[in-house]
Amino acid sequence: MAETNALPLIELAEQFAKLPGIGMKTAQRLAYFVMSMSKEEAKEFSEAIIRAHSTVHMCRICQNLTDKEVCPICDDTERDKSTICVVESPKDITAFERTREYKGVYHVLHGLISPINNVSPDDIKIKELLERVKNDEILEVIMATNPTVEGEATAMYISKLLKPLGIKVTRLAFGLPIGGILEYADEVTLFKALENRSEI
Amino acid sequence: MAETNALPLIELAEQFAKLPGIGMKTAQRLAYFVMSMSKEEAKEFSEAIIRAHSTVHMCRICQNLTDKEVCPICDDTERDKSTICVVESPKDITAFERTREYKGVYHVLHGLISPINNVSPDDIKIKELLERVKNDEILEVIMATNPTVEGEATAMYISKLLKPLGIKVTRLAFGLPIGGILEYADEVTLFKALENRSEI
Repeated sequence: MAETNALPLIELAEQFAKLPGIGMKTAQRLAYFVMSMSKEEAKEFSEAIIRAHSTVHMCRICQNLTDKEVCPICDDTERDKSTICVVESPKDITAFERTREYKGVYHVLHGLISPINNVSPDDIKIKELLERVKNDEILEVIMATNPTVEGEATAMYISKLLKPLGIKVTRLAFGLPIGGILEYADEVTLFKALENRSEI
Repeated sequence: MAETNALPLIELAEQFAKLPGIGMKTAQRLAYFVMSMSKEEAKEFSEAIIRAHSTVHMCRICQNLTDKEVCPICDDTERDKSTICVVESPKDITAFERTREYKGVYHVLHGLISPINNVSPDDIKIKELLERVKNDEILEVIMATNPTVEGEATAMYISKLLKPLGIKVTRLAFGLPIGGILEYADEVTLFKALENRSEI
């Protein structure tokens, strides 16, 4: 913002601009919007940030974000505790839960191994996963990291640690997305779809 | 968010979703991002909202947002106080200031007359403009509202109030945008450009 703007307003816009996907122009617009809120609304917004930040932490078991000691999924007696789906972030759990098909539990890594970004295996929740596998009766670990270089490398790394323990380690299937158009599929996806073809 | 998420996190996402142009999916992403901030960063963000909201108010003279009694533009002795540029919102001032060409002062209406949205002339800062015009030595008022139905109606309404006071009231020029392509200009813009053509 130009120096014609009030400093607290510039500072608020700068805070918004720190958020992912929000540029300075949008940040200014958001700051102006906050000015148009009532005093109560602004207070509520401000407090929601602090409240979420201070009360939400990782589930003792699966490392998902929760405000309880153990998250609702780990706490649910109807879930199959012998199957663990390993994901990169809590967002991915929301995606799986939307399918309403998965009945096992999760493990959130909070990142992927990435030497280029200085993320080593110790920086993500791998040892917590190994602890679970050693202490509980786990039959299968599903590696559900993204099909990217980091996602693949992390899945490989973890599966190499788990296999000696006699655990079945699986990976999500790759192929054409449902509703997708063959013509527009990239060559790697199409190759995977061909490679993993099944009899009908 | 699914019920698998912690309540304070859902509430924070709902706060973000109230902001203009932010849908529920982006709001979730922002809420997760706040969780990844340090305690200090979250506190700073939270406090910036309250600080901006409590210290920023309207300039006594031009109604621009400021944390002082009088905004820096009205306070600047080098600005030409006899020319007032009337704009819809403080954002518009930033746009004019970027041109570095305008040396007069501003008046922020904080809205436009819009019967469909229940905004009457009394709801925006028109009487404050009339006060200024009556009390100070004003030579020209430039109507710089947007070229929309509401912007035009508001400009017309205000000019009808000002003309009997012997004030010169002008409107921004409409025509082709610089760098624009004639082929893509809409018919109203092209008509305005033709109508307001000037000799070269």
